Amino acid sequence: MKIALLGCGTVGSEVVRLMRMRTTELADRVGETVEIAGIAVRRAGKDRSHLGVADDLFTTDAIGLVKRPDIDVVVEVAGGIEPAKSWITTALAEGKSVVTANKALLAADGPALADAARAGNADLYYEAAAAAAIPLMRPLRDSFQGDTINQVLGIVNGTTNYICSRMSEAGISYGEALQEASDLGYAEADPTADVDGYDAAAKAALIASLAFHTHVDLSDVHREGIADLTPADIKAAADAGRVIKPLCIASRDDDGISVRVHPAMIPLGHPLANVNGAYNAVFIEAESAGRLMFYGAGAGGTETASAVLGDIVTVARNRRSGARAFPPEAAYGERTVKPIGKARTRYYVSLEVVDEPGVLARVAATFAHHGVSLATVHQTGRGEDAQLVVVTHYAPDEQLTATLDELKRLSLVHSVSSTMRVEGD
Amino acid sequence: MKIALLGCGTVGSEVVRLMRMRTTELADRVGETVEIAGIAVRRAGKDRSHLGVADDLFTTDAIGLVKRPDIDVVVEVAGGIEPAKSWITTALAEGKSVVTANKALLAADGPALADAARAGNADLYYEAAAAAAIPLMRPLRDSFQGDTINQVLGIVNGTTNYICSRMSEAGISYGEALQEASDLGYAEADPTADVDGYDAAAKAALIASLAFHTHVDLSDVHREGIADLTPADIKAAADAGRVIKPLCIASRDDDGISVRVHPAMIPLGHPLANVNGAYNAVFIEAESAGRLMFYGAGAGGTETASAVLGDIVTVARNRRSGARAFPPEAAYGERTVKPIGKARTRYYVSLEVVDEPGVLARVAATFAHHGVSLATVHQTGRGEDAQLVVVTHYAPDEQLTATLDELKRLSLVHSVSSTMRVEGD
Repeated sequence: MKIALLGCGTVGSEVVRLMRMRTTELADRVGETVEIAGIAVRRAGKDRSHLGVADDLFTTDAIGLVKRPDIDVVVEVAGGIEPAKSWITTALAEGKSVVTANKALLAADGPALADAARAGNADLYYEAAAAAAIPLMRPLRDSFQGDTINQVLGIVNGTTNYICSRMSEAGISYGEALQEASDLGYAEADPTADVDGYDAAAKAALIASLAFHTHVDLSDVHREGIADLTPADIKAAADAGRVIKPLCIASRDDDGISVRVHPAMIPLGHPLANVNGAYNAVFIEAESAGRLMFYGAGAGGTETASAVLGDIVTVARNRRSGARAFPPEAAYGERTVKPIGKARTRYYVSLEVVDEPGVLARVAATFAHHGVSLATVHQTGRGEDAQLVVVTHYAPDEQLTATLDELKRLSLVHSVSSTMRVEGD
Repeated sequence: MKIALLGCGTVGSEVVRLMRMRTTELADRVGETVEIAGIAVRRAGKDRSHLGVADDLFTTDAIGLVKRPDIDVVVEVAGGIEPAKSWITTALAEGKSVVTANKALLAADGPALADAARAGNADLYYEAAAAAAIPLMRPLRDSFQGDTINQVLGIVNGTTNYICSRMSEAGISYGEALQEASDLGYAEADPTADVDGYDAAAKAALIASLAFHTHVDLSDVHREGIADLTPADIKAAADAGRVIKPLCIASRDDDGISVRVHPAMIPLGHPLANVNGAYNAVFIEAESAGRLMFYGAGAGGTETASAVLGDIVTVARNRRSGARAFPPEAAYGERTVKPIGKARTRYYVSLEVVDEPGVLARVAATFAHHGVSLATVHQTGRGEDAQLVVVTHYAPDEQLTATLDELKRLSLVHSVSSTMRVEGD
């Protein structure tokens, strides 16, 4: 079985190293030798001798490599939309199965790629596209097919989880935590993709698409970053017996589905609350299976390469037996993806208020006016420090934001000191 | 697609209910209708009207049902070795794919069943056989095929986890905790299979077989129950910053593999330490994927039926496409399964000792004499209460037990008050 590897950066180099290290095991598991027969790189002539592969395996002609008649399987770990998309669709059109870790491309063009796989009678596997080596895509594609998933809550970005964890543990600011993450190599020089939630949003689209048998486009995912988190928010969460986590949320109700990425307060007793540092975890609530969690390293070259190798073994086995994976998109439902305003969310709100009779009644009336009912209300402090802390029940997000807008205009309210969505109760 | 259901107890009834409830979704996901065409039961004439299926679907002639020409897939949820084994091998011989939850049979006769599946060109799936709806068998069969698993630590029996959790939380005795488990329906009238580790041992055999590509027979699994746990053991663990959990352990080193079921102390910071009540979790350490954990409900009719339905969808899809799963046993390695004496373990030992100079040196010399080196030693108390608490490094289990035998004979040692293997550091 001959593999074309497209891309030889952090993940690609590890795919090369692990395939060399595990040659015998992979052959045992597939039933024949699996070898890398060509590696497409952007720049020729770079010293890659540490990889221990023959120089003539490297080429800058990726599309030529994909089309080579001896290539059976194409592994794309270059990333980005183009030229990766052309490489993958060319491979699939030629009936060559593809393994990819390219979440951005899958989130942007998943259905087109799935169509290409079906048309070419080829497999398209992408376990490494979300949560690295944590088995997630495959359980969603296969294990839960007899069940109905109601909700997925995931910590799927290690950088932002590291930042939130450090803000909670060490009481430091967002900027300080980001600097730490950067010093440790968890954050990139330009951290936008992580801290503004773009990376998590792509993963959310993939997760929701598989969980709900409905194509969820990247543009369907509501996205908020973590850059506005303050130590006051972290403290407010702690005071409320909660912790703030950067979540990807995919939920389903009778009206449709909601897919979003934003920080949220979760109870300290929730299984995700103890997932700290750069770790990832995905919590799934299914109608029959109940509450499940998958936990592990969500990034890293070796971890991601482990998932890529697992997919290589699967597509190689399928090729040998003439089998192809059941295309997940063939069962696409037609669920509506709701905009954030229509998603049912809960809010934590803390308000600095005037210390006089009737404040609580006025604030409560404002929530009621917008159809939002309250789960808990705590009144603390006196005089200048008078504060109301409210946790709502679920309501359409737009009713909650409308409530907040009106509260900010009330003369009885000095300021809205912290607002945060609440999940996982 | 026509299914024969063999067994209609707790799990079988839920399979019936869920398949009726999800008829449309299952048809969407498979690509054709999937229906139960016959149900084999032990006793005819029992009132099963609550299931809402036609009376003429029930039969006491299981083997006749399996052989019926219209049956495509056989689902066995009756349990036990015979007649389940005959039913399954008959189905496979006729080329009918089988889904089963029968861990006892798989642990006893896995290779024979796998051979029968291969000979009949049929699928054999058994996700529900361990940890119910937690995807575990399938990740081991597929997701980790590009990696090398070094260790699996699992809490795979909810009854014993409930008992250990309650002993830790409430400080109650084993007998009291077992009574609670019984009152809540977590323990059966005869709790032997759970508390003596038979149930976990069967699951350990399945897990280790898949993790290490080596057939592990039930008789290869070293098994110790939890009935001898005392409040003193629980307290000793807490004093050492640990908690006692009923573990299934499958580990690999250069000499071979070790598969065992026994209670062990794990550090409070270990991901398994917070898995309480009747929940299950499996912690996997793989060379490249790193440390992962899967968590969820490990028992229950609905949860187990969810896993069965997931397998039904997979084998039904495979039948439609003409595909068959890669038989996991085709890659069987030839690893030696080491007896417990040769397994490398660590021990916690607390000793009541004479309070006089030289005791520590004598005790340390005893460990050294047997080639066991010490990780930590704490000396506490004076006079009658003088105590030594020792945690060893890894050594062959037989060297540790020989050390304990000799320590018990030392006149300087009043008694060995608690000994427990240590895992997860």
